[in-house]
Amino acid sequence: MAYFDAASSAPLHPVARQALLASLDEGWADPARLYREGRRARMLLDAARETAAEAVGCRADELVFTSSGTRAVHSGIAGVLAGRRRIGSHLIVSAVEHSSVLHAADTHEAGGGSVSQVAVGRSGAVDAGAYAQALRPDTALACLQSANHEVGTEQPVAEVAAACREAGVPLLVDAAQSLGWGRVEGDWSVLTGSAHKWGGPSGVGLLVVRKGVRFAAQGPLDERESGRAAGFENIPAIVAAAASLRAVRAEAAQEAVRLRELTERIRARVPRLVPDVEVVGDPERRLPGIVTFSCLYVDGETLLHELDRAGFSVSSGSSCTSSTLTPSHVLKAMGVLSEGNVRVSLPFGTPEEDVERFLRVLAPAVAGMREKLGAPTAEKVVRDEDVLVVDSLGKRCPIPVIELAKVIGDVPVGGLVRVLSDDEAARLDIPAWCEMRGQEYVGEESAERGAAYLVRRVS
Amino acid sequence: MAYFDAASSAPLHPVARQALLASLDEGWADPARLYREGRRARMLLDAARETAAEAVGCRADELVFTSSGTRAVHSGIAGVLAGRRRIGSHLIVSAVEHSSVLHAADTHEAGGGSVSQVAVGRSGAVDAGAYAQALRPDTALACLQSANHEVGTEQPVAEVAAACREAGVPLLVDAAQSLGWGRVEGDWSVLTGSAHKWGGPSGVGLLVVRKGVRFAAQGPLDERESGRAAGFENIPAIVAAAASLRAVRAEAAQEAVRLRELTERIRARVPRLVPDVEVVGDPERRLPGIVTFSCLYVDGETLLHELDRAGFSVSSGSSCTSSTLTPSHVLKAMGVLSEGNVRVSLPFGTPEEDVERFLRVLAPAVAGMREKLGAPTAEKVVRDEDVLVVDSLGKRCPIPVIELAKVIGDVPVGGLVRVLSDDEAARLDIPAWCEMRGQEYVGEESAERGAAYLVRRVS
Repeated sequence: MAYFDAASSAPLHPVARQALLASLDEGWADPARLYREGRRARMLLDAARETAAEAVGCRADELVFTSSGTRAVHSGIAGVLAGRRRIGSHLIVSAVEHSSVLHAADTHEAGGGSVSQVAVGRSGAVDAGAYAQALRPDTALACLQSANHEVGTEQPVAEVAAACREAGVPLLVDAAQSLGWGRVEGDWSVLTGSAHKWGGPSGVGLLVVRKGVRFAAQGPLDERESGRAAGFENIPAIVAAAASLRAVRAEAAQEAVRLRELTERIRARVPRLVPDVEVVGDPERRLPGIVTFSCLYVDGETLLHELDRAGFSVSSGSSCTSSTLTPSHVLKAMGVLSEGNVRVSLPFGTPEEDVERFLRVLAPAVAGMREKLGAPTAEKVVRDEDVLVVDSLGKRCPIPVIELAKVIGDVPVGGLVRVLSDDEAARLDIPAWCEMRGQEYVGEESAERGAAYLVRRVS
Repeated sequence: MAYFDAASSAPLHPVARQALLASLDEGWADPARLYREGRRARMLLDAARETAAEAVGCRADELVFTSSGTRAVHSGIAGVLAGRRRIGSHLIVSAVEHSSVLHAADTHEAGGGSVSQVAVGRSGAVDAGAYAQALRPDTALACLQSANHEVGTEQPVAEVAAACREAGVPLLVDAAQSLGWGRVEGDWSVLTGSAHKWGGPSGVGLLVVRKGVRFAAQGPLDERESGRAAGFENIPAIVAAAASLRAVRAEAAQEAVRLRELTERIRARVPRLVPDVEVVGDPERRLPGIVTFSCLYVDGETLLHELDRAGFSVSSGSSCTSSTLTPSHVLKAMGVLSEGNVRVSLPFGTPEEDVERFLRVLAPAVAGMREKLGAPTAEKVVRDEDVLVVDSLGKRCPIPVIELAKVIGDVPVGGLVRVLSDDEAARLDIPAWCEMRGQEYVGEESAERGAAYLVRRVS
């Protein structure tokens, strides 16, 4: 058994558990009350705020506890947009933000605001210069994650923050993935975090708003947490969140080196062990514990099940995962293969043996799946003048790419293959396959059903 | 030491503590994930939902867990108002709802909606007929608490629900105070609750929306909890909330009898032990554990401190509590005295001895305070023809009422006293004093500073 999905949620840190237990008996009362139980709850809350503020690098009165990281993001974005309504209603986000940021942007757009998405390169990072160019006189808020949750790539937050500062625009940093590793560098204005990502309990987020940022909390009035997080404070969880943040920070430098070496091992060895694999994300500027790769000709969900059976819990941004049937917006924005995608995110303390065992299990799992999927033939291949037509209509990822790969050798160099597909994933995966294989992706044409993807054989 | 403020927050029930501990190791993973830790978390969440639904009396798919009772109220009200926007934008609330309901109503009104407040009688209950008359063809939603949080009075929910059903208007019931005691009777449409009120952990609320109620969740999209409660699920706390709800329900019938007898003792004996006391709230149709009374000529906050020093943690809706300096909206709506107000709300398992000790401590505490406050004299009394003028300008509750009481005997029966006061609490407390004392409250007149309150001596 090995849990390799810390980027979704980390197991509870022992310090979080201890602190939670200790404060269950002390922290249940209303901290707004004047009697002893209330005063005790207030003291615990104040101390937790001091601890968290120290870890973030802000003043205690700039930090409030929310009920989740998602809530912190939603409230932070809505509060700044409302507070700066007179300046304008333009919002900037990167294309690879967490869904909580992108959904808040959708809501802003639906309400009449305008949103610019800043593109990322193949590594998943924005270009700081390109980000700066998106700033406008009517920009109310800019958002940039500290590091990406699906591929681990770190963003140039300090550079973007400097550009925002110069333009007088507050920058909101979603630091959910990085806060356990260290403070966010640079002159940001608003910061959000989520305790269960660093080994704290569920039910606690952080929202930090620097003094001087115009902020108008939205939703019904509630006096708790400076009016920025409605509802009764969850003090035992808040105490546990703050204590565990301090604890993981104390171990972070040493653990970063260790986990970076382990993920480096996966980055280096997976492409040697498994053919037709693309490791994605920035190889250098990345979080220590995350490594993501995509396996051609493999169905992501089935691979997850295979790995689960082998005792490994991993995640996937693959287009084939059942919940959505659309490819991860992150992999799409990066323009990399989403087929057979696997994200490994190691929790603090992951033993080396677990990683070695994973590397032993992966190759046979992928090979077995490919063997099974290799069976289908491109039955309805029709030669149409000098274009080979592959009819993959009604077939799901990864079949269209497999059929393309099987026939590319049948056309002469310079010849064309037209793949007919009504699978949304093909739009991402066929160009990605061309990139990986050195073939030319000519483009997409409309077709009677689905779309036609044109590929020219180059080699 | 005795904690008598369960209506604010109840100490953690032993079952909640056990369930929380047990699920900390099982419930931290993302229940949307397909691997074993995710499946385990999902199973815990599903089981908790079944348990809570059984306790509420609804289908499991009608119930979502929110991060607090306040959140449940805010989301429930906003969701129904948006879902029924085409019917109209009229909202009905009672005058004595919890602030989370009233603040949501304020937000609705600020956004262009209309709100009707249904008045309550001196017992704190709405009249079901009067409530029904507030229903209009454009009413989108009606809200009524199951029982009042400050005085314990139960509302005629079943009758109001029937009237709403006939008019085709959904009724939202804030059941925060009563859910531990039993299901809410009647044909309600939406129900909200809060776990820390029944001995569950902080950080968990319930939002139940009956099938068929038009509901459009507001705020950014989030797929968790049927799209009705954004943010990562706090599963250990949810498990603890559901388990403790079941546990308190199993003890509720027996404990209700016991606590009702204890609060009945307070209701009966406080007026005998302490002169000039008004016990407020319905003597029969009330929650078992809450009793509220107001002491004339006493400053509420000081009384709270006195009782805290004596080892009793109680709450006050008194006009004199420091945080707001305005009288409780509940006591105001009931038209009862708010001066020297004390709410005793007994947690499950309160020992009889604690109540007896409280009764022994209360009378000397009030007497001591009154003695101290008795000192100030109405220095600037000016006889103005046949009206005795008391200048209490610049003096805070309870001084204006004390000064009135001291001079009423100085005018003949039929004579008038005019109290000048710029203390907001006087507006409520002078009429309440007249009611208690059988004197006639003539009315309020504008004055150069503050207001003038006219009282006629009747006896």
